[in-house]
Amino acid sequence: MKFAATLALAAAAFALASPASAQSFQKPEDAIKYRQGAFRVLGAHFGALGAMAQGKAPYDAQAAAHHADVIALVSHLPFTAFAAGTEKGENTHAKPEIWTEQAKFKENAEKMQDAVAKLAAAAKTGSVDNLKAAFGPAGQTCKACHDSYREKL
Amino acid sequence: MKFAATLALAAAAFALASPASAQSFQKPEDAIKYRQGAFRVLGAHFGALGAMAQGKAPYDAQAAAHHADVIALVSHLPFTAFAAGTEKGENTHAKPEIWTEQAKFKENAEKMQDAVAKLAAAAKTGSVDNLKAAFGPAGQTCKACHDSYREKL
Repeated sequence: MKFAATLALAAAAFALASPASAQSFQKPEDAIKYRQGAFRVLGAHFGALGAMAQGKAPYDAQAAAHHADVIALVSHLPFTAFAAGTEKGENTHAKPEIWTEQAKFKENAEKMQDAVAKLAAAAKTGSVDNLKAAFGPAGQTCKACHDSYREKL
Repeated sequence: MKFAATLALAAAAFALASPASAQSFQKPEDAIKYRQGAFRVLGAHFGALGAMAQGKAPYDAQAAAHHADVIALVSHLPFTAFAAGTEKGENTHAKPEIWTEQAKFKENAEKMQDAVAKLAAAAKTGSVDNLKAAFGPAGQTCKACHDSYREKL
């Protein structure tokens, strides 16, 4: 499981490095498409992991660790793309509260990043029970942010 | 630069681990949106890195290393989402040749993954000259695949 452990270190490093590495975009729609793309990747791996955690797909420890590590890494990407000026356009579902409650939005993002880091650690133990235990709390952090900051889809 | 070195190891590990961790999708449009999302993330970081390599943005060694590491990691994601049955729909720009020339398409993908791994190594030397030298060949691998396998946008 060296692969998984290495990625977990990388995810931790991402968290430390992200302030210096903020993404910038030429046009608002570039930022919107970027964050939607990153969330799309996040959601796909989260869905695949959730299927295993919920017994809807066969448990595969290596695949679970991979999904969780991708989630942990990508969890740090989309939040660089909510700059001022990117509130509208390009079919965004972002609510205005993201920009009027920036501290709270950031706190929600960090809760999710912490929860998915724990999920990645749980996934790489190779125990489906650990995966199940960490999946629910991680999913709750996704839902909390969607409920507050994303229009109903 | 421990952060960058760790991510580079992670990217290498991704390459080794990817066969066991293929993503599967419930609906063709999920696969299409996923690969488009991953390419969108890839393109944004490639664009940001290219601006530095081409002198259009100030060179920032730490940001360059971050962008290149994200590129190296994400370069392994989208190719799991070109399964049979995902040829059409959801505004895809994928050409049919992807499915009729699978070995060649895979070869193109691997050339890109190799080139961006080298780009990540170059970026973390902290030398803009090394970055410039590695950027062109990496960009060529993007272009080669777009020319052959993506409809003109």
